[in-house]
Amino acid sequence: MNQMARIDTEAEAQMANAIRALAMDAVEAAKSGHPGAPMGMADVATVLFNRFIRIDPADDGWPDRDRFVMSAGHGSMLVYAINHMLGYDDMGLDQLRNFRQLGARTAGHPEYGHAKGIETTTGPLGQGVATAVGMALAERMMNARFGDDLVDHRTYAICGDGCLMEGISHEAIDFAGHQRLGRLILLWDDNGITIDGHTDLSTSTDQRARFAAAGWHVQAVDGHDREAVAAAIQAAQQDERPSLIACKTVIGFGAPNKQGSHEVHGAPLGADEIAAARTHLGWPHAPFEIPTNILDSWRAVSARGAEARSAWRKRLDSSPDNSRFNATLAAPDAVALRAAIRDYTAKLATERPKVATRKASEMALEVVNAVLPNTVGGSADLTGSNNTRTKGMAAVTPTDRSGRYIHYGIREHAMAAIMNGIALHGGLIPYGGTFLAFSDYSRPAIRLGALMGVPVVHVMTHDSIGLGEDGPTHQPVEHVAALRAIPNLMVFRPADAVETAEAWEIALTAAATPSVLCLSRQNLPAVRLEGGDENLTRLGAYVLRETKGARDVTLIATGSEVEIALAAADLLAAQGVRAAVVSAPCFELFAERAPSEREQVLGRAPRIGIEALIRQGWDGLMLRPGDAFIGMTGFGASAPAPALYRHFGITAERAADLANQLIQGGK
Amino acid sequence: MNQMARIDTEAEAQMANAIRALAMDAVEAAKSGHPGAPMGMADVATVLFNRFIRIDPADDGWPDRDRFVMSAGHGSMLVYAINHMLGYDDMGLDQLRNFRQLGARTAGHPEYGHAKGIETTTGPLGQGVATAVGMALAERMMNARFGDDLVDHRTYAICGDGCLMEGISHEAIDFAGHQRLGRLILLWDDNGITIDGHTDLSTSTDQRARFAAAGWHVQAVDGHDREAVAAAIQAAQQDERPSLIACKTVIGFGAPNKQGSHEVHGAPLGADEIAAARTHLGWPHAPFEIPTNILDSWRAVSARGAEARSAWRKRLDSSPDNSRFNATLAAPDAVALRAAIRDYTAKLATERPKVATRKASEMALEVVNAVLPNTVGGSADLTGSNNTRTKGMAAVTPTDRSGRYIHYGIREHAMAAIMNGIALHGGLIPYGGTFLAFSDYSRPAIRLGALMGVPVVHVMTHDSIGLGEDGPTHQPVEHVAALRAIPNLMVFRPADAVETAEAWEIALTAAATPSVLCLSRQNLPAVRLEGGDENLTRLGAYVLRETKGARDVTLIATGSEVEIALAAADLLAAQGVRAAVVSAPCFELFAERAPSEREQVLGRAPRIGIEALIRQGWDGLMLRPGDAFIGMTGFGASAPAPALYRHFGITAERAADLANQLIQGGK
Repeated sequence: MNQMARIDTEAEAQMANAIRALAMDAVEAAKSGHPGAPMGMADVATVLFNRFIRIDPADDGWPDRDRFVMSAGHGSMLVYAINHMLGYDDMGLDQLRNFRQLGARTAGHPEYGHAKGIETTTGPLGQGVATAVGMALAERMMNARFGDDLVDHRTYAICGDGCLMEGISHEAIDFAGHQRLGRLILLWDDNGITIDGHTDLSTSTDQRARFAAAGWHVQAVDGHDREAVAAAIQAAQQDERPSLIACKTVIGFGAPNKQGSHEVHGAPLGADEIAAARTHLGWPHAPFEIPTNILDSWRAVSARGAEARSAWRKRLDSSPDNSRFNATLAAPDAVALRAAIRDYTAKLATERPKVATRKASEMALEVVNAVLPNTVGGSADLTGSNNTRTKGMAAVTPTDRSGRYIHYGIREHAMAAIMNGIALHGGLIPYGGTFLAFSDYSRPAIRLGALMGVPVVHVMTHDSIGLGEDGPTHQPVEHVAALRAIPNLMVFRPADAVETAEAWEIALTAAATPSVLCLSRQNLPAVRLEGGDENLTRLGAYVLRETKGARDVTLIATGSEVEIALAAADLLAAQGVRAAVVSAPCFELFAERAPSEREQVLGRAPRIGIEALIRQGWDGLMLRPGDAFIGMTGFGASAPAPALYRHFGITAERAADLANQLIQGGK
Repeated sequence: MNQMARIDTEAEAQMANAIRALAMDAVEAAKSGHPGAPMGMADVATVLFNRFIRIDPADDGWPDRDRFVMSAGHGSMLVYAINHMLGYDDMGLDQLRNFRQLGARTAGHPEYGHAKGIETTTGPLGQGVATAVGMALAERMMNARFGDDLVDHRTYAICGDGCLMEGISHEAIDFAGHQRLGRLILLWDDNGITIDGHTDLSTSTDQRARFAAAGWHVQAVDGHDREAVAAAIQAAQQDERPSLIACKTVIGFGAPNKQGSHEVHGAPLGADEIAAARTHLGWPHAPFEIPTNILDSWRAVSARGAEARSAWRKRLDSSPDNSRFNATLAAPDAVALRAAIRDYTAKLATERPKVATRKASEMALEVVNAVLPNTVGGSADLTGSNNTRTKGMAAVTPTDRSGRYIHYGIREHAMAAIMNGIALHGGLIPYGGTFLAFSDYSRPAIRLGALMGVPVVHVMTHDSIGLGEDGPTHQPVEHVAALRAIPNLMVFRPADAVETAEAWEIALTAAATPSVLCLSRQNLPAVRLEGGDENLTRLGAYVLRETKGARDVTLIATGSEVEIALAAADLLAAQGVRAAVVSAPCFELFAERAPSEREQVLGRAPRIGIEALIRQGWDGLMLRPGDAFIGMTGFGASAPAPALYRHFGITAERAADLANQLIQGGK
């Protein structure tokens, strides 16, 4: 891949200056943005693209393209400048001129889906590094399945000091080093500057030693010596370990009076300094003007990629794996999955197993994983608790990537980001488990997945005080509300094995929405006693038990509390009170339904919500003023689950009492 | 401090076995818990306590005590066993027998405030390490203020593999290494086992090299060789760098058939294995029975501590710094603060500055920091954006800890945990800043602070789409709702400089509740135009503008949207519509008020909530069915703030239109 022999180094210097010019001009036009990183890393990025990267702007989805991640997302103008010059058809000069303006593709930070050639959304620091690790892992896993002919690319990421200070970077580099992800090359913009000033204000870690300790191949170069950068990338490509290249750079390189200072990090340079930079760099061209010969040099990169893609296409067309490869990249087979889930839930409705929903999840996964050969399970070191590993799922190891199960280690945050990376790479469908309380650890990556619309499945077990003795540090109380708050995220809390299977079906066939499955530690009885062709969980909430005659009260519950609602309805029935029971496994799907449909499900009678969590999120959607809620108002406690349910008053008896009070009060 | 010369090594061996016996017996009685870590680390902990630690169970709040943190919180029985034998009066055998039962002090994971001698709540892995870093920093900062006579103690923490895999550990060790916190000694339970099996399933990091890269003093010992452990602790005490002691241990040491395996990590050993362990360890005593001579040995540790405390007390009594020292440990001077805030807000009501609330926060801090000499500011590398540094605040550096400002680096998560540690240590009042969107990064530590009731102040600026061009990765949309969901956390979103100052007053005088201040990037007009003796923010929500005559509509807003509500009321007034405006800076405080008081504020007229965030949390407390809300329903976008407010329809015009619709609809 190395094109060093025929490099025109003078042209390459101008290619880099073109990035610098576009970055400072666009930031100036926006009166907002970050010129420092694009100007500092222009040489490194130019060498990377000019001599190594294999992409084709004419087909931004080409599966075997190299992946490029700008983890230092505030340096977005580096990406936009390059993508403009490479000739992406959605990145015209108008986009650069409208940097950071409403409706432009050139958002403040690079956003996946907003423009071609942006492999992942970055900005929150460290996320790009971990996501790139997921991409590099997916590449090797796909390679193990399809061989070098079809899968043989690299993942390059640029990160800054901030990315390396964030905790997620530790989780990611530790994981990548362990998995020996040699196809990953991390280019560190080692400029010694953060927003507050010099990095020595807050860190004195020897980053090179740190990466070496994690099993990485480490090099250091002058980031403005393009031949040295090229030699380092070439050496990195040859090494079987993931590579760090520490690129010593001057932030804002080219702005003669401000470079090397935190002043160039995140503010426009100003007209005077831009003029000085033009002189200093020998760049006499007008703002946003790129001379044809320099544009041609960039377009040559694209031409090289187009050639590679064409050759790859031929290999795919003649490959015996052709249809299997296309199938793995296509959307999951929803029809086959529906059939399998239908048969499975019909059987469940007969067998009515009393199992924890985490166990029910494993049972559903046995069905799912048989139908979808490209699911990839995993856990943050809670495999036996999360029940994420089905029969025959071999572990993905540094020496054999053909397996389907990933030991993410005690790294909830990186797990979520790595799963985003796997899903973004394409070809594999990742799901991974931890305790629901630790969704707080993975939350920044869950959010980014929701923003990007990446359909990852987060398996979160031990979903309430029902986990018992581990106590309030491990007991989710507010986590479901906090997850329901994230836009474009489906939060499921299924009540039994049937709903759990249905939730899996919805999660795995979602086109652009990640899901969280909140699952119980404790056993729960079957509540859906009839098989059916319809996935009722897709309704968000539905009437599980209707009354004969007008309802006196409606009990609405989720997950483990549906059992309590049913028991309360029994108690009330014995008292001659007609209580309907609504199961509400997914608030987001319910919210999407027409108000009249929702009203029909919830009824006009007094309502009681039951969920062993806080009330936030119930009012408005489920409850009206005067309706009641049984749940938690503060943190849990350490004790066996039945004692906790009694202690916090989350019982059928209390629900029945409250129902009688509401009914009396309404009379 | 080292007592090596007169150690009875045979007695010490039995002291360690006593921990093992109590741990396995208590877990067995609870039928739940983690015997592996207490049994594996019993030798290390015994040496630490027997020969080094200086605490006095008769005065668990003695300021100059050593701090001990069990970061591997699942090993809680190690703490409870030790504290029982040391003679803490709240840790009788009944507590051990009721391990993990309702109402017992012996929660599943150690909980601050549940029992004496527990310095911080642990369980979520890595938190203890970072919190210990905060304690160690606070010790040096207090030492810089009061000298060796009054402040001269150490912080010891035990951590497991899980703690070191979590990202927060990176942030914490990097920070501790940079700050050269030589009083911190971290004892790593290097047993090579995690829940899923051997650590080599998921990590191959050279931890010793990793810590060395971060500037730590590193040693490795056989964790069952007590003399080696003692020598290592002694060497660690001599070194100026923070110390890691890698203690090679056998998990579940003493259980002959199960030790060294992940089976002993988190499940009772069972009667047979416990019997075998008793034989293997030469421990013939009945369950929960500790021979008097062994108990005496443990009590000698306490006696040594009592002696040290007594000597320290004499030094304090005769110290010229006596009253200053006591004052810094006491609760903040609420009377002085009230007077200063009253004067300041009275001035503001006259001057009516149009400033961003992040700037208003800095202005308030100038007042606050003058009144409270022991506040300690900081930021996760966003000092100029968070406005957390007031005049004359010198940085805390590795060579001078007398300053009041901490450069936390780009480490939001560790910052929150370190602040918890500083607050738990006592003597200093920490606050620290980042962007509100990154509260997701620090969330696990914010939650732990709320669970513990540690009054830390989290300054979170750039609190909505109002931050503009940085786009949706940086724009909080759901974060305020997600923070409001955390129990025992006050979330403030002040509307102007007066409310910002009032929020600071409440946050700093809270006895056992942490706070989050959500502050705008953009300038906001003064909305409180009259000075007053009362802190109205303490009401949670209050009528900012009342109507003459009955209200036609009530507009309820927070923070930057109060300006919009006022403008809408003006528009409506011009149309002859009477609109009241309610400012609601703190939902949690409002929720505490009587329903009738809340009703009086919110009125019976139709209501419109205005907050440039999602609606979750508004219904029930603020809004009724039929009321309206103007805010966000999904992620933001990248553009200048005014364009975004127009784009998302968060405008006075829309509020006025909606008001008219509601009023028409109600007629």
